[in-house]
Amino acid sequence: MRDEEAVGARISALVATRRPGYSLPQAFYTDPDIFEFDLREIYGRSWLMVGFEVEVAAPGRYLAMTIGRSPIVVWRGQDGVLRGFFNTCRHRGAQIVADGCGAAERLICPYHQWMYDDHGVLRGAGRMPRDFDKSAHGLGAIHVRSIAGTIYVCLAETAPDFGEFHDNLAPMLAPHDVLNARVAAEITLVERGNWKLVMENARECYHCGVGHPELSASFPIDARGNFLSSERVDIAGFKQRMAAIGLASAPVEGGWWQASRFALREGFVSMTLDGAPVVRRPMCAINGGDVGSLRWAVEPHCFCHAVGDFLFMFSALPLGPQETLVVGKWLVHKDAVEGVDYTRDELVMVWNATNLQDRALVETNQRGVNSLGYVPGPYSAQSESLALRFTDWYVDRVRERVMPPAALRRDTVAVG
Amino acid sequence: MRDEEAVGARISALVATRRPGYSLPQAFYTDPDIFEFDLREIYGRSWLMVGFEVEVAAPGRYLAMTIGRSPIVVWRGQDGVLRGFFNTCRHRGAQIVADGCGAAERLICPYHQWMYDDHGVLRGAGRMPRDFDKSAHGLGAIHVRSIAGTIYVCLAETAPDFGEFHDNLAPMLAPHDVLNARVAAEITLVERGNWKLVMENARECYHCGVGHPELSASFPIDARGNFLSSERVDIAGFKQRMAAIGLASAPVEGGWWQASRFALREGFVSMTLDGAPVVRRPMCAINGGDVGSLRWAVEPHCFCHAVGDFLFMFSALPLGPQETLVVGKWLVHKDAVEGVDYTRDELVMVWNATNLQDRALVETNQRGVNSLGYVPGPYSAQSESLALRFTDWYVDRVRERVMPPAALRRDTVAVG
Amino acid sequence: MRDEEAVGARISALVATRRPGYSLPQAFYTDPDIFEFDLREIYGRSWLMVGFEVEVAAPGRYLAMTIGRSPIVVWRGQDGVLRGFFNTCRHRGAQIVADGCGAAERLICPYHQWMYDDHGVLRGAGRMPRDFDKSAHGLGAIHVRSIAGTIYVCLAETAPDFGEFHDNLAPMLAPHDVLNARVAAEITLVERGNWKLVMENARECYHCGVGHPELSASFPIDARGNFLSSERVDIAGFKQRMAAIGLASAPVEGGWWQASRFALREGFVSMTLDGAPVVRRPMCAINGGDVGSLRWAVEPHCFCHAVGDFLFMFSALPLGPQETLVVGKWLVHKDAVEGVDYTRDELVMVWNATNLQDRALVETNQRGVNSLGYVPGPYSAQSESLALRFTDWYVDRVRERVMPPAALRRDTVAVG
Repeated sequence: MRDEEAVGARISALVATRRPGYSLPQAFYTDPDIFEFDLREIYGRSWLMVGFEVEVAAPGRYLAMTIGRSPIVVWRGQDGVLRGFFNTCRHRGAQIVADGCGAAERLICPYHQWMYDDHGVLRGAGRMPRDFDKSAHGLGAIHVRSIAGTIYVCLAETAPDFGEFHDNLAPMLAPHDVLNARVAAEITLVERGNWKLVMENARECYHCGVGHPELSASFPIDARGNFLSSERVDIAGFKQRMAAIGLASAPVEGGWWQASRFALREGFVSMTLDGAPVVRRPMCAINGGDVGSLRWAVEPHCFCHAVGDFLFMFSALPLGPQETLVVGKWLVHKDAVEGVDYTRDELVMVWNATNLQDRALVETNQRGVNSLGYVPGPYSAQSESLALRFTDWYVDRVRERVMPPAALRRDTVAVG
Repeated sequence: MRDEEAVGARISALVATRRPGYSLPQAFYTDPDIFEFDLREIYGRSWLMVGFEVEVAAPGRYLAMTIGRSPIVVWRGQDGVLRGFFNTCRHRGAQIVADGCGAAERLICPYHQWMYDDHGVLRGAGRMPRDFDKSAHGLGAIHVRSIAGTIYVCLAETAPDFGEFHDNLAPMLAPHDVLNARVAAEITLVERGNWKLVMENARECYHCGVGHPELSASFPIDARGNFLSSERVDIAGFKQRMAAIGLASAPVEGGWWQASRFALREGFVSMTLDGAPVVRRPMCAINGGDVGSLRWAVEPHCFCHAVGDFLFMFSALPLGPQETLVVGKWLVHKDAVEGVDYTRDELVMVWNATNLQDRALVETNQRGVNSLGYVPGPYSAQSESLALRFTDWYVDRVRERVMPPAALRRDTVAVG
Repeated sequence: MRDEEAVGARISALVATRRPGYSLPQAFYTDPDIFEFDLREIYGRSWLMVGFEVEVAAPGRYLAMTIGRSPIVVWRGQDGVLRGFFNTCRHRGAQIVADGCGAAERLICPYHQWMYDDHGVLRGAGRMPRDFDKSAHGLGAIHVRSIAGTIYVCLAETAPDFGEFHDNLAPMLAPHDVLNARVAAEITLVERGNWKLVMENARECYHCGVGHPELSASFPIDARGNFLSSERVDIAGFKQRMAAIGLASAPVEGGWWQASRFALREGFVSMTLDGAPVVRRPMCAINGGDVGSLRWAVEPHCFCHAVGDFLFMFSALPLGPQETLVVGKWLVHKDAVEGVDYTRDELVMVWNATNLQDRALVETNQRGVNSLGYVPGPYSAQSESLALRFTDWYVDRVRERVMPPAALRRDTVAVG
C-alpha cells in the first residue's frame, strides 16, 4: 500500500538531483517503487513495438504478450482490421489467451467461458442474470498502429501522437517489404538488470569494439551521434549511393523515436562476419541488397536493424527492478527457405552473440550500480549520445508524471 | 518498517472503493502490505481447520504445521487433552519441532534444549541463572477445539465464538465416524496466486463444467447458492431420502462457516467418475453409504466433502502475496486396507485432478489480475454466491480491523 | 523510495522497546527496511575482516569480494602498498573485476575499458572529450589496514579508530606467522537466516554440546564469558604454561572486537576429533604447537581461531533480510604439502561440519522468529554473554545512527 503521493514527491526530489550528462541516481536502477512507477507511467503510456503484421496476417490471428505485468492481445478482426485489448477477462480478471500467437474467431476465457468478439464486445456470459449489461463489460481497448508491416501499441487511455513517427518511418521502411517477410527466429533472454541499464547498453556502441567482436566486423562502432560521422566508413559516399538508388539516409527523429539509414563497413552488405548476406533471397532487393542498415528505435524499449537480407528486432520488457526480458526476432523474406536460402544458426549468429555479450555486461553493470560506492558518471558525448538521449527522455517523462508534492500544493492555499 | 497506522488508513480508503457484488480492487490480490495484514488480521484471528483427531490420537502425539509464517503445534497431553501452542521457543525463538506429525512426552528445542511439558510449561533451561523464572517463559498458547474428530485452532488471544459452528456441525458429521478413520493420502501444491484467488476458485463451481471434467461426473455443478437448487439432481427427493434415514440436509451457516448435505448426481453414491464407491469399507455405512456429500467450509481457508466412503479436506495457506500452499487430505475408514479395499491412485484421482486444474486456473487468474487493465468484475448471483460470500466476509473483516486514520481520531480532540 | 527519515524514526521507536538482556524485537530479524539500514549503517561503517596478506602477496595481486551489495577490491600496488577501492567504475558504474583473487597492473573496466592505476587514478577513458577531468573520476577509496598478515577494510568515509585493536592483536597473532601461511581451503554456504541470527549463533557455545559433536571434542563448550572459566579445562594451568612460553592469554577487548588465547580440552593441541594436529607442518611451532587457540572476533561479522597447526576464519555477509553468505577459510603453513602433511578433508572436517550444523540451527531459528508468536527471550548470562555483547553492540550502533525524528527537530525551531 504505497502512498502514491508521497512516493511521487520522493521521486520528484530524487530526479531534481540528477546531474545533466550523467547516468541516473542509484534508486532509478534499483528501487521497487520506481519500478512500479516505470511500469505504470513509462511502459503504461508509451508507444511500444510488439511485432509484425505477418505474425497476425489472416483474419482471426492474434499475438498475445505481457508488457510488464499486463497481458495484452493484438488481434486481427474478421474485417481485416487490427485491434488491441487488455487480455484480462472483465468477469474475475483471468488472462484470456496464453502469450504467443494463435487464431480465433472469438476469445473465450478459460475460467468461466466468457466470450468476446473481435471488437472486444462481450457476447457470452453464462449464468449471469437476464438484466446483466454485456455492453458494459467489453475488453479494455488499447491503441494499435502499424507502419509498413510493423506493429505498435499504447496501453494508455490517451496515446502520444503517432503521426510524425509513422510519416517518417513509412517511406524509409517500405523498400524492406516487411509485409512479405516472416519470422524465422525468436530468442528470449532474461537479464538480471534494470530495464534502463539494458536500454542504455542498447543505445551506444562505445562498448562494441571489445564487447562485440562479431558485431564489430560490420558495424561502424566508432560512429558519432546518430551515425553522423565515422572514421571507419565513407559516410558521404554512402549517402550518394543511397540517393542514387532513391533511398533516404538522413537521420530523422522525434521526442521518442529515431530512424536513419547508415553505412556498414566498406564492402559489407549485411551484418555478418564477412559482410556477405546470410540469406540468399533478400527482403530488399534494391542494389543487390546493398542498402546499409535502416535502424529505428523507440523509447523506452526497442531498436531494429533492417539490412538487405534480414531484419532484426530487439525489445526489452521489464520483469522486476533488476530483471528484464529481452526478445529478439529475426525476419527474412517469406520465400526464403530454411536450409536452402539460409540456415537459422547463421542467421541469428551475430545478434544472438551480441545479446549474450550484452547480458553479461548489463549484469556486471547492475552489480556495480548496486554498490554504496556508486555515483552517477558522465556519458561520452561522442559515443554515448543516444544513451544520454534515452536517459534524458526518461527523466523528462518522470518530471512530467510525478505529482507535485502535496505540501507544495497546499502552500498555495491562501490562509486568512 | 511499515507505518502500520498509515497502511491501515490506506487499506481503509481502498476497501471503501469496493463495489458490492464485484471482485476486489487489485491491491487486495497483489500488495505485500495487504498480505502482511491478511497474515496478522485474517489468518491470525480466524478459526482454522488443521486436521483430524486421528492424526494425534494417542497421548504425546502432535501435529505441527506453519500457518502463514507461524509454526504451531497441536499436541495431545498425557491426560488425553488436546492443546495448541506457538511452536517457537521462548529462549531465542527457534522452531521447536519440525512440521509434520510425531510423538513426544516433552518438546525439546533443538537449539539449546529448553524443554516444555504438555501444558506448555518450561521444565528445563540449562545454564540459566538460579533465579530465572521458568513459569514466565512457557509456550504461547493457541486455541484448539474439536468437532466430531476434526480439529480447529485460532492463534488470536481472543477467539471468535466457536459454539454455534460446533453445535451445528457435530450432529451432521457424527455419522461419518471420523474418529475411526485414518489419513490415507496427503498431497500439497504450491499455487502462484494470492490466497484469496485460491479461495474464490474453491467457493464456486461456475468453472467446473469445462474446468473439471472428473469432478463434474458426480458434482451438481449447476447448483445455485448453497446447493439449494439444481437441474441435474432431484433435491426434493434427496431431502426425503435423507430424512428417511435420519440425516439432516438443510444448509446451515454462520458468519464464517457453512455446512450442508447435498445430493450427488442421480445414481452416484461417491465423488468418482462412475459414482461407485472407491473404498469398499465405508466411513459412513448408513444406507449403504448413499448419503450424498456433507460439505462444510470455514472462512478464510478450507472446505471438506464427506461422502459415504471417504472424506476430502482442502486447506489454503498463504506463502506470499502471490503464492499459496494447498494441502489436500483424504480419509478412509481405519480398517480399509490399501490394495485390498481401495487403491491410493483411485482414491485421490478426482480431487487431485481438480486441484491441479484449479492451480492452472488460479495462476491464469493472477496473471490477468496483475494487469494495468484489470477492473473488478461482477460475480454471478446464481453460480458464485459462495465466492461472493467469501469476499464479503473478507471485506467485513478488513473494515473491522483497519484502524481509523490517526488524523481522524485527532480531529476529535477539542482544541482550546 | 523509502522516506529515510520516517524509517529512521520507526527504527528508533522500535529499538526503544528492546528489553535489556533479551533477543531483539522481531523486525530486526525480518524487516527489509532494517536490512537496508544494516547494509548502510552497520556493514557500511564497521571494520570488516576480508582475508589475508598472503592472498595478495605480490605487487599487482588483488582480492575482490562483495560486501552486502558493494563490490570492493583490495589491491597491492607496484610499490607494495595495499589499497582498497569500491570496485565500481566511475563511468557508468559497472563492476570492474570479478569477485575472487587475481593480479593486474591496471584495472580495466570490462564495459568501456576505463583504466585505473594502483592508486585508483583514472588513466584511460577512450572517447571522452579532451577537457574531461580524469582526476575527478578516480575509484572511490576504502580504508585498508593489516594486522600480522590479516586484512581489514572499512567502507565509510571516516573509519572507527583501528589502533587499539591493532596494537592488542598484533603481538598475540605474530607467533602464528600468518605471513608465511597459505589458504588451503575455502568453503561458502548460503544460510536462509538474517545475518544477526547467524552471528548470535556464532557468538555462543550454549548450543555446542548437542549441536556440534565434532567441535565439542576439543572446545571448552562450557566456558563462561570470554573463556574466563570452565569445568572442562584447567584455565589457571593453561595460563601458566602460556606465560612460560611467552604467549599472552588474557582476554582483551574493545567496543567492536575481542581476542583471547584459551585452552582446548586437556591433552588437545588442535581443534580435531582426537586433539592431535591435522597438519604435520605447524604455523606456530612454539611448544610443539601446543598453544591453545587464539580466538579473535570483529563485530559485526567474523571470528577466527588460530591453533598451532592451522587457522580458521569465519565471515558472515548479508545477502537479504533472511539470507546470509558464510565464508570459511582455512590456512596452513605455506610449506605444508597437501597429501603429505595434511589432507584437505581432514583439515576442514570439524569446522565444516560445525558450519553445516549451524546452518540448520540458524534456519530453524529464523522460522520460529518469523512467527506471530515470537517474543524476545533472555540470553543466558553464563553461556551467551558474547551473543548478548554482539546484540548490545548492534543496538548501540542503531541508536547512534538513527536520525531523531524530524518532528522533534522541528519542535526546537522557535516560533514567533
